[in-house]
Amino acid sequence: MREIRKINIIGAGNVATHLAIALKNAGIEIPFIYSRNQESADILSRKCRSNSTTDISKIITDIDLVIVSVSDDALAEVLDKLGKGNSLIVHTSGSVPMDIMSSYSENYGVLYPLQTFSKDRDLIFKEVPLCLEANSSENLEALRKLAYLLTDHIYFIDSFQRKELHLAAVFACNFPNFLYSIAEDFLKKNELPFDLIKPLIVETAHKAIAISPSKTQTGPAFREDKKIINSHLQMLMKHENYGEVYKLLTKSIIDLKKQKKLNDKTNTKK
Amino acid sequence: MREIRKINIIGAGNVATHLAIALKNAGIEIPFIYSRNQESADILSRKCRSNSTTDISKIITDIDLVIVSVSDDALAEVLDKLGKGNSLIVHTSGSVPMDIMSSYSENYGVLYPLQTFSKDRDLIFKEVPLCLEANSSENLEALRKLAYLLTDHIYFIDSFQRKELHLAAVFACNFPNFLYSIAEDFLKKNELPFDLIKPLIVETAHKAIAISPSKTQTGPAFREDKKIINSHLQMLMKHENYGEVYKLLTKSIIDLKKQKKLNDKTNTKK
Repeated sequence: MREIRKINIIGAGNVATHLAIALKNAGIEIPFIYSRNQESADILSRKCRSNSTTDISKIITDIDLVIVSVSDDALAEVLDKLGKGNSLIVHTSGSVPMDIMSSYSENYGVLYPLQTFSKDRDLIFKEVPLCLEANSSENLEALRKLAYLLTDHIYFIDSFQRKELHLAAVFACNFPNFLYSIAEDFLKKNELPFDLIKPLIVETAHKAIAISPSKTQTGPAFREDKKIINSHLQMLMKHENYGEVYKLLTKSIIDLKKQKKLNDKTNTKK
Repeated sequence: MREIRKINIIGAGNVATHLAIALKNAGIEIPFIYSRNQESADILSRKCRSNSTTDISKIITDIDLVIVSVSDDALAEVLDKLGKGNSLIVHTSGSVPMDIMSSYSENYGVLYPLQTFSKDRDLIFKEVPLCLEANSSENLEALRKLAYLLTDHIYFIDSFQRKELHLAAVFACNFPNFLYSIAEDFLKKNELPFDLIKPLIVETAHKAIAISPSKTQTGPAFREDKKIINSHLQMLMKHENYGEVYKLLTKSIIDLKKQKKLNDKTNTKK
């Protein structure tokens, strides 16, 4: 069974940074980190006691695993540059199928960390879910052993499911963050501090995961409180875009509540 | 200066429960807790070493403060039943103006805790923002002193601002929770565990408040990644309502990003 001890990394962005540091902390050797951007490669390499390089050919020699952690758009270009090699290779993307990696090697897979990363924000990697896929059971086992060093949360997710997961993540991360930013902007325009609603944002998230968001829904839409909904829409008249968002989400909450009631009734009748 | 040592509470719902327990823990005496529902009144009273009652007339005698913590709809009815009294009285609602309380007494105000409460979920009350308003500086000072016993986060917010705050809270709490529930349902339909995205939900919230949601926006919409957006819309075709939500939020994120760029340009030219 192949054991992964030496890993080269392509990319020095947010995901690459957190992954590289977690690998280093787990005792993995990272001989080279490649980035098109010398400075980014340097910064991350210093943190991981690696060599930085802007010469991609250095990446593919004498190594157990190559991790390609670049934007989806850059992935094809990187693979093109890499040409052919032998080592196991993975990408870290939520939405790109695994098979794209087959152009490089006969041993390939995916190592997708499902989290929102920023270079300058620490997090506990042990809590990050790692989604694994590989083209053979041997490669999958090698990735599993590696992942086990990094996190307590390992999932085996194929390319099809990973795409669904990535879409769910948009609803769980990108869209809520956008709504926070509307709240922030709306407060600012009304000369109220964003600090005021920070505890609410955090508790809403914690409560939803502790119980279940479908059971913790509250608010004027859920209560179908038309008086408050109308007064809110009035207040949002000046903010056209926000009013549209408010209207649709309110309508969706009411519609889905009705739909659920209907389903529950149908199920009871059965 | 009036000092508040004895408080009666009308209501035994989520807000009343957390507030009553926090008051009790702060050494405040709560002679009576009223609820239309005897069982709810009993449960909360036991926790606060109070007497429970379904007779509202017991509430208004020999007391420093009456807290009315009922639903917005029930508030007028409660005030009607209360008639006239002397003690300071407050409600705890985000969207009801303070003046409604004037029917009861010449001393009135609002004590609005900006948080999402559930009876069966503990939280640290010291971290809950309390928004205060009163009809006189003396009453406000009395409320401030009381609030100081309960929390480290006291804000003076008038009825107009409180309404704005309440609307912001819908964007910061109710709507994100709804999006979590879409993610939950979508994962369930695709036989993926909700556990997978729990760390993402929590980190998204923490990151947004630590940095600023306007600076932490990521995702296909923000990158204007049309390829992924289209593939997501394709996947959502079976879920009509979710597709609509995805489409509008994606459009809003793109529109607001363009708007922001335009504003930044205009500001630079000035």
